[in-house]
Amino acid sequence: MNKTINMIVAGPRGKMGQEALALIERTDHFHLVGCIDRKNNGKKLRDLEGLPAFDAPIFTDATEAFDQVNADVLIELTNPEAGYHHAKQALIHHVRPVVGTSGFSEDQLQELKDLSTSNATGIVIAPNFAIGAILMMRFAKEAAKYFPDVEIIEKHHDNKLDAPSGTAVKTAKLIQEVREKHKQGHPDEKETIEGARGADVDGMKIHSMRLPGYIAQQEVVFGMSGQTLTINHNSADRASFMSGVEFAVNEVVNREDFVYGLENLME
Amino acid sequence: MNKTINMIVAGPRGKMGQEALALIERTDHFHLVGCIDRKNNGKKLRDLEGLPAFDAPIFTDATEAFDQVNADVLIELTNPEAGYHHAKQALIHHVRPVVGTSGFSEDQLQELKDLSTSNATGIVIAPNFAIGAILMMRFAKEAAKYFPDVEIIEKHHDNKLDAPSGTAVKTAKLIQEVREKHKQGHPDEKETIEGARGADVDGMKIHSMRLPGYIAQQEVVFGMSGQTLTINHNSADRASFMSGVEFAVNEVVNREDFVYGLENLME
Amino acid sequence: MNKTINMIVAGPRGKMGQEALALIERTDHFHLVGCIDRKNNGKKLRDLEGLPAFDAPIFTDATEAFDQVNADVLIELTNPEAGYHHAKQALIHHVRPVVGTSGFSEDQLQELKDLSTSNATGIVIAPNFAIGAILMMRFAKEAAKYFPDVEIIEKHHDNKLDAPSGTAVKTAKLIQEVREKHKQGHPDEKETIEGARGADVDGMKIHSMRLPGYIAQQEVVFGMSGQTLTINHNSADRASFMSGVEFAVNEVVNREDFVYGLENLME
Amino acid sequence: MNKTINMIVAGPRGKMGQEALALIERTDHFHLVGCIDRKNNGKKLRDLEGLPAFDAPIFTDATEAFDQVNADVLIELTNPEAGYHHAKQALIHHVRPVVGTSGFSEDQLQELKDLSTSNATGIVIAPNFAIGAILMMRFAKEAAKYFPDVEIIEKHHDNKLDAPSGTAVKTAKLIQEVREKHKQGHPDEKETIEGARGADVDGMKIHSMRLPGYIAQQEVVFGMSGQTLTINHNSADRASFMSGVEFAVNEVVNREDFVYGLENLME
Repeated sequence: MNKTINMIVAGPRGKMGQEALALIERTDHFHLVGCIDRKNNGKKLRDLEGLPAFDAPIFTDATEAFDQVNADVLIELTNPEAGYHHAKQALIHHVRPVVGTSGFSEDQLQELKDLSTSNATGIVIAPNFAIGAILMMRFAKEAAKYFPDVEIIEKHHDNKLDAPSGTAVKTAKLIQEVREKHKQGHPDEKETIEGARGADVDGMKIHSMRLPGYIAQQEVVFGMSGQTLTINHNSADRASFMSGVEFAVNEVVNREDFVYGLENLME
Repeated sequence: MNKTINMIVAGPRGKMGQEALALIERTDHFHLVGCIDRKNNGKKLRDLEGLPAFDAPIFTDATEAFDQVNADVLIELTNPEAGYHHAKQALIHHVRPVVGTSGFSEDQLQELKDLSTSNATGIVIAPNFAIGAILMMRFAKEAAKYFPDVEIIEKHHDNKLDAPSGTAVKTAKLIQEVREKHKQGHPDEKETIEGARGADVDGMKIHSMRLPGYIAQQEVVFGMSGQTLTINHNSADRASFMSGVEFAVNEVVNREDFVYGLENLME
Repeated sequence: MNKTINMIVAGPRGKMGQEALALIERTDHFHLVGCIDRKNNGKKLRDLEGLPAFDAPIFTDATEAFDQVNADVLIELTNPEAGYHHAKQALIHHVRPVVGTSGFSEDQLQELKDLSTSNATGIVIAPNFAIGAILMMRFAKEAAKYFPDVEIIEKHHDNKLDAPSGTAVKTAKLIQEVREKHKQGHPDEKETIEGARGADVDGMKIHSMRLPGYIAQQEVVFGMSGQTLTINHNSADRASFMSGVEFAVNEVVNREDFVYGLENLME
Repeated sequence: MNKTINMIVAGPRGKMGQEALALIERTDHFHLVGCIDRKNNGKKLRDLEGLPAFDAPIFTDATEAFDQVNADVLIELTNPEAGYHHAKQALIHHVRPVVGTSGFSEDQLQELKDLSTSNATGIVIAPNFAIGAILMMRFAKEAAKYFPDVEIIEKHHDNKLDAPSGTAVKTAKLIQEVREKHKQGHPDEKETIEGARGADVDGMKIHSMRLPGYIAQQEVVFGMSGQTLTINHNSADRASFMSGVEFAVNEVVNREDFVYGLENLME
């Protein structure tokens, strides 16, 4: 049986905010005690059309929210500017922030870290909340110690502009840290049509597929004489994000330190 | 219950020839009655070390083989020059050839076709005996009528020199015949690392993976709003070839015409 | 350049109806001229909150709709009872129905067929509009002629109650029509844990996976010595349905007959 | 540059032994200095037909081999009885054994362990040398901490008798150690055909596919709201085994302890 966690959501009307409200609704020990919204001060969430019928009061001023409501955790899903302010106020009031907003400056991060330390109040800031993606990268880095040959295929909807994806490049860089650099494939291999062998990152190959019908998927394939090992992560963005938020909320209540990156919360 | 088929194998000591002997051994209604080999004339197959203990006699001269032994089918697995001669002698003797040798000239093909017609004796010549590969190409061509967006990924061992594979290019060309040409992906997409989006064939993309541990695999992926359809063929070359030979032998005994390409035997 | 097709949507406020409106919005030659809705008679679509701002008038009475508006096609997405009535009125007015409602009685189907014939007006009724699923089944049936061994894996979200899925069973039955019945696997194979080898349909095996994170996917795997051929359909239901509706609309305008099942429209 | 490792192979004529010889041939710093074979005492390896032309002498008596030849490592690939004797003699002579033979008794293992300790000589005994399979199991156990829902599909050639495979059951048991037990799937799910949902291990499901054309493959699929994470190992047995032997040889030369299981050598 999990202990009830009282939480404030900042940004309840956004797409992520609505997913967070749905998460709270379906999680027994999560309890919504308030919202921070730049509009609707003084109303209750149930007064807003299209949102779940929570009794939680809405505050436009974060300080007021933390003063008047007794919360354990802040789920911060607005924007870097407001998010920094909300997280800071939360720490001051000994409320633990879980922050899905990215884009803080180095100075802001340092200030939040100092505040977390001095107040012994945990905070988690994560640019990527997809647990599966984080495990995929961790496993890829580990496998690369034993399998020096690897290729990455990432598959996305054809409205994606850049190729390869940021996650693919990040995965390649993590592998690069542990593997001995070498050019893969046969030394004399040649492309009869340019581009067939994909993008080269330090001798590794990345292939980007773009098709309607795909959402977001990445496969990391390791090959060795007689065997292959494949790690595949498949996601539908927002819902997969929420599994990470849930995990972070359950962890942050037991922490008193500053954590950047969900991967540092998972060990 | 299948009727017994008596057959002669040309090239019994080669890798393919040995697979053919194994096929005959494990197939109840296949019966080996002779071999054509440039060496070992007058011996029996069981006299040769490392080969299965068939009583079938070995002939170096093809004419002599077809004169002395009563065969229904010739399995021809030598080389274009000898193969042409063997197939011709078979047709003359009303023995149906199944030919896995490629590389005949247009003139030779025409001559074999004429001989097949005048003798009402079936012959099958197939550059590719992998039934699964042929079905993959057929299905890809059919799917392309309904799914205009498609990418091909082919995966081979890293001792393969050329990329993309011949089968991938052939598949793209078959799709090209039925789909309206268009450049896939977002019109503004850009490669931040060159080659990420693969080789371009008429707006379609082909990606070539090369890793130790792979044998030979091709995936054709069609995407459409909300769905993908994937056709995947995975093969370990020689054994997969033999399934096609078996199929061709069972078909050729009922035919009196010239067939080029296994796909024209499958309908 | 495609000729403009004027259409009436029955059931515009439902989930499918809204997808149909989105389809019309993004398709250049599709033009919405009216809606049939059991409420909102006399309003325009743009008057209804949350729906796209079409000027099309709304009718509660189908006869009135077909009398007052000049339409080529009816997209029928309500329920069997209303749907039968709408389709009948459409045919009487020489408007071609594309019907995604299933559940008509044999008598109703026969009546619609007779009406289609006597009025020389095409109609398409399809219980499944996912083009990819239909191709998967067609290819599976074709491949089974050459590959006697096959297993099916279907993967769905864990809120699905029944296993195996209807599509998996339907696929197995189609394969059954062409393959010689035989029990697959080693004759002496045994399950050390019951159920490992899956559900048995006429000697074929079906495996049902249920996991959060899956939407709807089916793989049909054919195996033969040295090779496998896999056909995989992956779908996110409603959007994939609309590709089939689009296809059916473009086909029905050129037809004067009754077609049941999208597969009979694809050849 | 790796330091040369001198090695003795026990069982050079067996299938595994021949793979080991091939491994030594293609690895620059591996050097064959002798063989242990129950036949052919006094000959050189090059005298035996069908084996690579090494000058290494053959011994039938293991003690004699270790006395006369200066070796760093013994690769032991015979049978439990002879293997135990060979490993023991190796340790006595301060030669490090890498043992692919399984089936030692507890007493034998304890004795080898004691001998390794007292002689400060490393020894690696591994029932499974497929590095990829070991990583797959390790990653599965790690992922299960974050993804409570998982299914396993294992795919093997249809000459395999038992289902599920030993590796699948072992993987399930490793996952069992870290996940909270729960029955997966919808609480009300029902099988309309028995076996569809696979074998149940502690609430997890295992599915066993058996088809000609498959070699040996296992997929572990984790699902969570909006995402799946899949770990797939694909192997062609003997060659994949050798990658593990190579790894073990390179590790054992730096160790002075007893290691059981390749997983304990990889960290």
